[in-house]
Amino acid sequence: MVRDKSYLLIPGPTPVPPAVMAAMSKPMFGHRTQEFAGLYHRVVEKLKLVFNTRGDVFVLTNSGTGAMEAAVANTVSPGDKVLALITGNFGERFANIARAYGAQVVEVNFGWGNCVDLKTVEEKLALHPDTKVVLATQNETSTGVVNDIRGIGSLVSQTPALLLVDAVSGAGAIEIRVDDWGIDMLCTASQKAFMLPPGLSMITVSPKAWEVVQSNSSPRFYFSLPACRKNIEKWNTPYTPAVSMFLGLEAALDMMLEEGLPNVYARHALLARATRKAVLELGLQLLAPDHCASHALTAVWGPRGIDADELRQVARKEYKVAFAGGQGELKGKIFRIAHMGFCDKTDVVVAVSALEMALARLGWPVELGRGVKAAQEVFLKAV
Amino acid sequence: MVRDKSYLLIPGPTPVPPAVMAAMSKPMFGHRTQEFAGLYHRVVEKLKLVFNTRGDVFVLTNSGTGAMEAAVANTVSPGDKVLALITGNFGERFANIARAYGAQVVEVNFGWGNCVDLKTVEEKLALHPDTKVVLATQNETSTGVVNDIRGIGSLVSQTPALLLVDAVSGAGAIEIRVDDWGIDMLCTASQKAFMLPPGLSMITVSPKAWEVVQSNSSPRFYFSLPACRKNIEKWNTPYTPAVSMFLGLEAALDMMLEEGLPNVYARHALLARATRKAVLELGLQLLAPDHCASHALTAVWGPRGIDADELRQVARKEYKVAFAGGQGELKGKIFRIAHMGFCDKTDVVVAVSALEMALARLGWPVELGRGVKAAQEVFLKAV
Repeated sequence: MVRDKSYLLIPGPTPVPPAVMAAMSKPMFGHRTQEFAGLYHRVVEKLKLVFNTRGDVFVLTNSGTGAMEAAVANTVSPGDKVLALITGNFGERFANIARAYGAQVVEVNFGWGNCVDLKTVEEKLALHPDTKVVLATQNETSTGVVNDIRGIGSLVSQTPALLLVDAVSGAGAIEIRVDDWGIDMLCTASQKAFMLPPGLSMITVSPKAWEVVQSNSSPRFYFSLPACRKNIEKWNTPYTPAVSMFLGLEAALDMMLEEGLPNVYARHALLARATRKAVLELGLQLLAPDHCASHALTAVWGPRGIDADELRQVARKEYKVAFAGGQGELKGKIFRIAHMGFCDKTDVVVAVSALEMALARLGWPVELGRGVKAAQEVFLKAV
Repeated sequence: MVRDKSYLLIPGPTPVPPAVMAAMSKPMFGHRTQEFAGLYHRVVEKLKLVFNTRGDVFVLTNSGTGAMEAAVANTVSPGDKVLALITGNFGERFANIARAYGAQVVEVNFGWGNCVDLKTVEEKLALHPDTKVVLATQNETSTGVVNDIRGIGSLVSQTPALLLVDAVSGAGAIEIRVDDWGIDMLCTASQKAFMLPPGLSMITVSPKAWEVVQSNSSPRFYFSLPACRKNIEKWNTPYTPAVSMFLGLEAALDMMLEEGLPNVYARHALLARATRKAVLELGLQLLAPDHCASHALTAVWGPRGIDADELRQVARKEYKVAFAGGQGELKGKIFRIAHMGFCDKTDVVVAVSALEMALARLGWPVELGRGVKAAQEVFLKAV
């Protein structure tokens, strides 16, 4: 098998485009320079277009969980009531971070594979008028469910509570409008739809959030947003930034803006539609219901009688196609096909064809090419 | 002036060798794989050789300050007495991190340009027998002073206190022996002597430190060392690691081990000696006294009547040679020449020759070539 001919179809890290790789390979330079300041300035202006915000945007040198912790550490003081809207593994993680900071967490668990129900959110907010912070997940990576952040925002913005959104695997793949939707802090990261290696995260801060940040009493240093704000006056960072990744981020943002954000989102929606159609055509079941299926990844129940992880192993070993497994309670039961970032129609064809061949090898009654055909039809109809 | 012909002689980020860049440019792969587990395992084994420890080593996805915060967040509980040994900007930063975590900080400030005096440490430890944590800097990047960590360790290890060492700009350039010297936590980072871009940090944890970590009550999630320990059982990380930088780290460690660590340290010592000799020969004054001058960088007082930052600007603009400026109280007064990581004799020649030409341009009475000759003599004598 020829080396390096492999397909990374997991929901992060995702493949890095050649232009991004080239940008990251430029000679190193100092971060306390006009060169870096200009770069950071440009990157932030471009991120504001993706996030649809006129508020503050900071780029942090850590992975997405670090941005989520920055959001919590700067807004949650010990004893604060936090409403955690949970639809899977990463919703649970957000709640756990709040717990680590001494929050009184009210968990609202909608179940893995379901999305947030707005009526329940409305009731919970009424029941807990002293809620200081609401935690929500835009795109739940563990289940391939996308939540209605706009709807959640319209409810939370009527209260004094802040809305913190984990958009780690969603932003850049699925439209998000920070200002219009009342998102007080949006957290995302480099290694998903932004097409970079892991190691950078991004966070937005609304004026409403800043008021809380200032009076917050939790310990924070590396994740201090006031320190970020002070330094960004000169387009600098409080601590040494991952310089080469900033170069890569600009290259990735340029790719996204050149394609056009509406086209980027339409591409992700199309790839999701084709993937779902193909999987159903093969007789497999989808985890997420249609109305809240993610455009960034598709979670699929393993075929009856076959361990989903065994299926993944065959796809990986025989065809060098990597799908992700199930997390937590879904381990071995589902597999996940990502179609985010540097991904296009041909990747879906590769994914589906590898899935077909792996199913056949494991003795599942599959009609070879049937899923591929279904995907092709979706693509041709979309022209 | 030809593009990209530039010399980065600042104490981090430092130039990235081609082999490291190539390693980081490999196709992305998932972090929950045998491939990553093998990589992390090998990297940790190699780091143990550099740190001279049989204890735990973790690699974190954040810059060096994050590792320093991890050390503090896992060992300092609110109200704990912390003895901070300060010799410059980064000693102050370590103390500030402890303050952010509610420590009662006893500052012992030896002054910028001086090193830690062991007798004073002994007295302070006796005066504060309830000290829980001692903070020390191996190589103070702001002044080019190296502290006697072995001596500090021999004092602290006789007490119940933990010794946390910031070796961000020292480890890999100057020998450090974690186990023999009684270092409970060593923090370092990728973008100095380890020749990588910024974005990774490394931390060691002694058995004595683990006992404190377990009972610590400070909030920590991204920086949780218990989470690191749990995950490293399967050679994994609790949160998405900067995969490509791990690849680069292995390549850099291979370079260091191939050269041989004693040779790496001897090279740094030689470059420092040549730089100091050359600078003195040009009639400039050194900041650090001989007995505690760093092998990783050399801090130089600006020539009388000339702003050190103006001198740097000329070197940078005319010869594309970047020196670092002074920090805090030394801003505009000193400049710093780094000779760490991917650096050899020719870099010192370039640095000194650019310094000579910049001095001449600014009207300082300099005999061109005199500093270069001094450096050359040091190199030839060392053969």
